[in-house]
Amino acid sequence: MGAPIARNLLDAGHTLTVYNRTPGRAKDLVSHGAREVPSPAMAATGAEAIVTMLADDPAVTASVVDGGVVQALGRGAVHVSMSTISPALSRRLADAHRGAGQAYVAAPVFGRPDAAAAKRLWIVAAGAADALGAAWPILDAVGQEVLVVGDDPGAANVVKIAGNFLLAAAIEAIGEAFALVRKHGIDPARFLEIVNGKVLRSPVYESYGALIAAQRYEPAGFKLKHGLKDIRLALQTGDEVAAPLPLASLMRDHYLAAVARGWGEIDWAALAKVSAENAGLTTSGDGGRGRGDG
Amino acid sequence: MGAPIARNLLDAGHTLTVYNRTPGRAKDLVSHGAREVPSPAMAATGAEAIVTMLADDPAVTASVVDGGVVQALGRGAVHVSMSTISPALSRRLADAHRGAGQAYVAAPVFGRPDAAAAKRLWIVAAGAADALGAAWPILDAVGQEVLVVGDDPGAANVVKIAGNFLLAAAIEAIGEAFALVRKHGIDPARFLEIVNGKVLRSPVYESYGALIAAQRYEPAGFKLKHGLKDIRLALQTGDEVAAPLPLASLMRDHYLAAVARGWGEIDWAALAKVSAENAGLTTSGDGGRGRGDG
Amino acid sequence: MGAPIARNLLDAGHTLTVYNRTPGRAKDLVSHGAREVPSPAMAATGAEAIVTMLADDPAVTASVVDGGVVQALGRGAVHVSMSTISPALSRRLADAHRGAGQAYVAAPVFGRPDAAAAKRLWIVAAGAADALGAAWPILDAVGQEVLVVGDDPGAANVVKIAGNFLLAAAIEAIGEAFALVRKHGIDPARFLEIVNGKVLRSPVYESYGALIAAQRYEPAGFKLKHGLKDIRLALQTGDEVAAPLPLASLMRDHYLAAVARGWGEIDWAALAKVSAENAGLTTSGDGGRGRGDG
Amino acid sequence: MGAPIARNLLDAGHTLTVYNRTPGRAKDLVSHGAREVPSPAMAATGAEAIVTMLADDPAVTASVVDGGVVQALGRGAVHVSMSTISPALSRRLADAHRGAGQAYVAAPVFGRPDAAAAKRLWIVAAGAADALGAAWPILDAVGQEVLVVGDDPGAANVVKIAGNFLLAAAIEAIGEAFALVRKHGIDPARFLEIVNGKVLRSPVYESYGALIAAQRYEPAGFKLKHGLKDIRLALQTGDEVAAPLPLASLMRDHYLAAVARGWGEIDWAALAKVSAENAGLTTSGDGGRGRGDG
Repeated sequence: MGAPIARNLLDAGHTLTVYNRTPGRAKDLVSHGAREVPSPAMAATGAEAIVTMLADDPAVTASVVDGGVVQALGRGAVHVSMSTISPALSRRLADAHRGAGQAYVAAPVFGRPDAAAAKRLWIVAAGAADALGAAWPILDAVGQEVLVVGDDPGAANVVKIAGNFLLAAAIEAIGEAFALVRKHGIDPARFLEIVNGKVLRSPVYESYGALIAAQRYEPAGFKLKHGLKDIRLALQTGDEVAAPLPLASLMRDHYLAAVARGWGEIDWAALAKVSAENAGLTTSGDGGRGRGDG
Repeated sequence: MGAPIARNLLDAGHTLTVYNRTPGRAKDLVSHGAREVPSPAMAATGAEAIVTMLADDPAVTASVVDGGVVQALGRGAVHVSMSTISPALSRRLADAHRGAGQAYVAAPVFGRPDAAAAKRLWIVAAGAADALGAAWPILDAVGQEVLVVGDDPGAANVVKIAGNFLLAAAIEAIGEAFALVRKHGIDPARFLEIVNGKVLRSPVYESYGALIAAQRYEPAGFKLKHGLKDIRLALQTGDEVAAPLPLASLMRDHYLAAVARGWGEIDWAALAKVSAENAGLTTSGDGGRGRGDG
Repeated sequence: MGAPIARNLLDAGHTLTVYNRTPGRAKDLVSHGAREVPSPAMAATGAEAIVTMLADDPAVTASVVDGGVVQALGRGAVHVSMSTISPALSRRLADAHRGAGQAYVAAPVFGRPDAAAAKRLWIVAAGAADALGAAWPILDAVGQEVLVVGDDPGAANVVKIAGNFLLAAAIEAIGEAFALVRKHGIDPARFLEIVNGKVLRSPVYESYGALIAAQRYEPAGFKLKHGLKDIRLALQTGDEVAAPLPLASLMRDHYLAAVARGWGEIDWAALAKVSAENAGLTTSGDGGRGRGDG
Repeated sequence: MGAPIARNLLDAGHTLTVYNRTPGRAKDLVSHGAREVPSPAMAATGAEAIVTMLADDPAVTASVVDGGVVQALGRGAVHVSMSTISPALSRRLADAHRGAGQAYVAAPVFGRPDAAAAKRLWIVAAGAADALGAAWPILDAVGQEVLVVGDDPGAANVVKIAGNFLLAAAIEAIGEAFALVRKHGIDPARFLEIVNGKVLRSPVYESYGALIAAQRYEPAGFKLKHGLKDIRLALQTGDEVAAPLPLASLMRDHYLAAVARGWGEIDWAALAKVSAENAGLTTSGDGGRGRGDG
């Protein structure tokens, strides 16, 4: 995900230094003018701004806190944090940067790598006004629109996490609905065509419904294990403020059951396989009615 | 709901006899040429077709089975069953009518009364081919499109029930997401604008999200107690074929908690109040952060 | 279950007429002096009291209401209803008997057939004082103690249903705890020995824990499909009074998943197999760690 | 909890150095011969063994890892870790001590402070054989029995966590059962007397049932917020090995709802208030039937 964003920055005329935990991954960027360095701190040294796009909280903590980015970055520089991380970490990072005379903007994104390449990302941004101002040329260069949610950096992360929760909830609901209709002998694709095609008209039900009706979980657009990570984030984000999220709890348990069955690397739409198996249905793609039909 | 459908039948030139459990309710239809009778059996006597649109399984059983519709209806007539009822009852009714030399079509609808009035209902229909043929002029007169799902009448009811389950699931998901963002100090309307307005683009999230963000549950478009009834139907429909629906279970418990708090008569979007109260939020419409924030 | 109870009535000197849906099942009772008849109504005719012990609500309704027991039973007679049925049906039966000048006592029991044979049943009884008085010689002849819960007959059924819910909850909890410890490489029998043997000391955890640790689900002491029936009763009993029971909902879904896997006829302790399979554990009795351990 | 354990060590003739985050808390121990020091590292310096009894993972990490205990402790010394912490942290500590030529034993306990004072704690212990040998005089001095679960230190923590999960599950089940019987007009104390007093005979149902029937949640024997902490531990411990624990998920959401209502400081049996409120019951101790009874 970082690569297409970096490419857009280069295309917009920015001078770019890149660091990737896997050396060589940045080869293509280097061929387009980026400079590759072997540590996050070296990427931060002397920069006006640093952009991070990493897997999760531990990865960001490792690079930015333990990796010395805060120390290496100069006063007045801004950290544009685009990873899907917890609001708690975002708020800690904002404090750390403020303490070092730096600015911090949380700017997680909605969109897949192809959307990033096409500059079609939606960027949710939050931070102090001057931090947002400093980050603007970067955000403007990589997304189709910047959606500001205020000056609490954590708020941007909450919006991203709650958004992914809504997406996951749609997948869970489709999975259960399809298990129900299949057990009653109804083709899920026909069900989808009627209920979503005519009545609900949700693009999310449309795209995930089609994948699940066809039981097509590879190649993964977004891996199930990453879906589990994001549901964990939702639960943790709720836990911090004493907000129970029973639907997220239910989904976490289903994601764990999926991972326990070895489905962590396929598309997170495969959450629907858990509902199908619990209904005694086969999940091999034949659409057939399974065992124990009542 | 029966009234606008009946009106469309009259407008299409059909001769109509009507029965309503509340006498006088059909006054407007009578003024447009319908004949009112005091029992379901009298409405069925001599009719080519009978259309039922009732509240639930017991109401349909009372009118059609105990009320003597099967006995009163002549051989060759068709029963067009438009209520949201269980597939089990639909299959029993189909058997009873077949035994009496009659036809049965399950034809539940998606759409609210105003859509019915505007002939904008989506009709999901299932039954034997000749039954569907006999019902066609009626279905054609009252809906914008008839969506056929096969010859098992129960299948149409399953599609309707699973569709309402998807709708309810969207409301539950919005309710939890809003509780989460509110506890983090984020305006749910802004969250909705970003996540659904830009990314998910679901009309269902849009309309229910707006109601819930504004905490506007009256007047009820669809009463919460009817939402509970439909979730019970989903669970029963799953139970019959051994299909667990944990999300439906979770929602049933939330609907019951809502009814226990006296919210049965307001809009079913008020399911979101359960998530808000469980997070310690006020639910009086002020959008304020509640007690126990961590 | 009816047989040992009937035998105790004979042993106490009562004159007994028996009816069983499967003819011949009462042979042993007949050889001890009972008279067998081919219908419930014939068993009721001329009796001072009638005792019913049947599978579920539909079975009781079929025998007592549709089978004409109320009509056949004389004025002043008492119906001792020992089945595990809904409070709603119990209340309806009490009304019907009252209308016919008869008495009704709900008297469900705790204990398995061997406890019944040994006169070790616990009887939970409720009904009007005179009805309880009339039923007393019967209750006294078949149980070790009669526990009265008041004059609402439904209350006895609620106590029985809520009691079975507690039992089922213990099984669910053990199943999840064992899945957790097994995935961490701990022998569940050792876990049980420590936590229940020393700390909790619950006879229920002891007996079901031993069955589940050994994965010994046959022969069934109480069939899983009957456990599902009782959880459905709990949910229905809660639904009537708007009491959500999320733990019962969770268990119903697990029982359905078990039935969908073909485990309806084995012991209801096999509910634990659902937790084990969802954790990716083998459930063949080897205690081994399954797939997907992290 | 640490104080009575320390007292037992003194009574057994051990030489004791104590550290408490709140200075002065150890006054009583000092008056019985203990030496108080102002840091965990000072307590570890020169000791043969160090015993830790702290609130949670962060507290143990702060004292032992960040507080320099590993560095201060000599080669050959043993760390007896009695806190209820995650198996993951226990395994990390074992590694750290091994790397420093030291031993580590996980030894969480079952029992409340009064049991500790009376030397009635049950100690669940795990670690390498020589570590267990080194810890034995300490364990023997403070508990009524040491229950060994193997050489993986994490296993002792898993047993403790799964044990607390079973305890919490019993409370949840009682809470739901009581809500059900109360809505049907039955006194929960009478229900408990019958179902647990006669049939189930679980000491846990007995003691917590009595508290909940009387709605007596203060003073807290074990605070609800600590119950939430332990359920989080159970979920995390399951998450690590992909073991879904839906009952734990359900309870976590109920604990959060309780905390959001401001009940974090009262007894964890107050979890039952969530079930009562969700059923529309008053929870002020009057046992009365609440709003929305059907």
